[in-house]
Amino acid sequence: MSQPYDLITMGRMGVDLYPLQTGVSLAEVETFGKFLGGSAANVAVAAARLGRRSAVISRTGRDPFGEYLHRELRGFGVDDRWVTAVEGCPTPVTFCEIFPPDDFPLYFYRRPKAPDLVIHAEELDREAIAAARIFWITGTGLCEEPSRSATLAALEGRAKSGITVFDLDWRPMFWGGAGGASGDGGATGAAAMATARPYYEAALRYATVAVGNVDEAEVATGLRDPWECARALLDMGVELAVIKQGPKGVLAVHRDGRTAEVPPTPVEVVNGLGAGDSFGGALCHGLLAGWEPGPTMRYANAAGAIVASRLACSSAMPTADEVDAFLAGR
Amino acid sequence: MSQPYDLITMGRMGVDLYPLQTGVSLAEVETFGKFLGGSAANVAVAAARLGRRSAVISRTGRDPFGEYLHRELRGFGVDDRWVTAVEGCPTPVTFCEIFPPDDFPLYFYRRPKAPDLVIHAEELDREAIAAARIFWITGTGLCEEPSRSATLAALEGRAKSGITVFDLDWRPMFWGGAGGASGDGGATGAAAMATARPYYEAALRYATVAVGNVDEAEVATGLRDPWECARALLDMGVELAVIKQGPKGVLAVHRDGRTAEVPPTPVEVVNGLGAGDSFGGALCHGLLAGWEPGPTMRYANAAGAIVASRLACSSAMPTADEVDAFLAGR
Repeated sequence: MSQPYDLITMGRMGVDLYPLQTGVSLAEVETFGKFLGGSAANVAVAAARLGRRSAVISRTGRDPFGEYLHRELRGFGVDDRWVTAVEGCPTPVTFCEIFPPDDFPLYFYRRPKAPDLVIHAEELDREAIAAARIFWITGTGLCEEPSRSATLAALEGRAKSGITVFDLDWRPMFWGGAGGASGDGGATGAAAMATARPYYEAALRYATVAVGNVDEAEVATGLRDPWECARALLDMGVELAVIKQGPKGVLAVHRDGRTAEVPPTPVEVVNGLGAGDSFGGALCHGLLAGWEPGPTMRYANAAGAIVASRLACSSAMPTADEVDAFLAGR
Repeated sequence: MSQPYDLITMGRMGVDLYPLQTGVSLAEVETFGKFLGGSAANVAVAAARLGRRSAVISRTGRDPFGEYLHRELRGFGVDDRWVTAVEGCPTPVTFCEIFPPDDFPLYFYRRPKAPDLVIHAEELDREAIAAARIFWITGTGLCEEPSRSATLAALEGRAKSGITVFDLDWRPMFWGGAGGASGDGGATGAAAMATARPYYEAALRYATVAVGNVDEAEVATGLRDPWECARALLDMGVELAVIKQGPKGVLAVHRDGRTAEVPPTPVEVVNGLGAGDSFGGALCHGLLAGWEPGPTMRYANAAGAIVASRLACSSAMPTADEVDAFLAGR
């Protein structure tokens, strides 16, 4: 086998259609730009922009939008060898509305089944996953079979070697409802969380790092206080819990007693979408470098803030020079 | 009841996303424009632009794209009172590729169920449908329940009063397959036609006009020769059969013996999508005016050619002055 990857992500990928007019409803948007999207893809791109050797495990439709996603991944330097096509499932598209500073509604076209939910365990490159310095999975990858079993099998096969990150990524519309994630509507709130929690618990047993906001941590823990969430996540198996608190900054708590509370990075928000994935890619960068929790969180916060200050998402992920300049300029 | 409508159409409606770069695959398109789309909506718009009082019976999702469609219909002067929202079904979006002069692939996001296929017979305004001077249905409206039964009930209730047009509109991907129109892939070719034919036959018993290209006429008749198709459609119940033959022009055959063969209208094609709906709206205009088949076909051909020479579709539908100027300039 060739040199291990710094980062392999597994999960959601699709085409994002971003309005070229901001501050208005989709009813008023006249034109859209097309971008690579989906949290697994975005995190891999974010790490690649920071110089990390990354790959993504996902799927697309067999269509021109799928070709586009391959082209984009390669253009960003992300290995696309584990991105394959699913017959009969179009590549998902997602529209968003941009109401800065904090309202960015998403409209998903992922039904009846998104290709990234058709990942089969037997098709995984277990050796590469086990060897990767970081393996990254997301909550959405647990919402539906066969990707749920594949995600858990990948975690199990890795057996906590290296760093394994669980992005608690919570999209209630993908959970519950008569047809599961593909069904009409889907459950929301407590019902969706109750459906998801056993799978979040199972994944946490194989993860070494958990990252999410309070809403996402609540799915896993049932708690909403950041410190209580972090301690509960440690109790559930991880070594490092990272709780993003939006305007209150970020909390990181390590099993060995190290903690970091980092204030938010003030920035004029243009589009908050993708900021969390930029944070994630930079978190990987810091973990790979062996930085302490404090510097890692400050760096990831800055990377997130840079993307939030830009309209685009995947193509807005900063380079290391940009993050350094941003931190130096504060 | 108020004054009858000149035209009520029933069927498909959604948001069309047209590439702002033509001659390239969706993989290369960078930006998209947003337009009202769907054949039932487009035909109503085309007739309204020609001064006809028109309305459409269709449905949308309960979302900003649905609001947009209402706004557009009203902006074009089309009555939207029978366009209602369906919970849990997003407003469909359709992408296209533009390869002039004759290749315009469509990519539909209408699954698992398009709102315009959730029209219930009991919610129809039967009185208004019966009173309309023209009632217009499309083949897609027959592909799935409850819209199939609603469409046939509307036809039955109208009982051939006035002019009833069946747009043979054939989209094989909406037919057949394990999940019906909502299923993976769907049947194609002969299997899909065999599934559709009984419903096309049922609709033709209540229609006075059938309009379609040879592929569409084959679904109804099993034949491909234009004259044979036209005669078979007359035998199946209509008074006027209109066969669009692309580069060979248009053939119209009336039960009373009048016929018209009109050559195509030479034009530099920019985007062929919507040309058929423009033809349809102009056909209604000619039928309402009581024109002979020859002038009606020439007028409709010109209206179609004008839209084919423009990038947009609904917003490209010509006014009567534009059609007159086009015909005068030839």
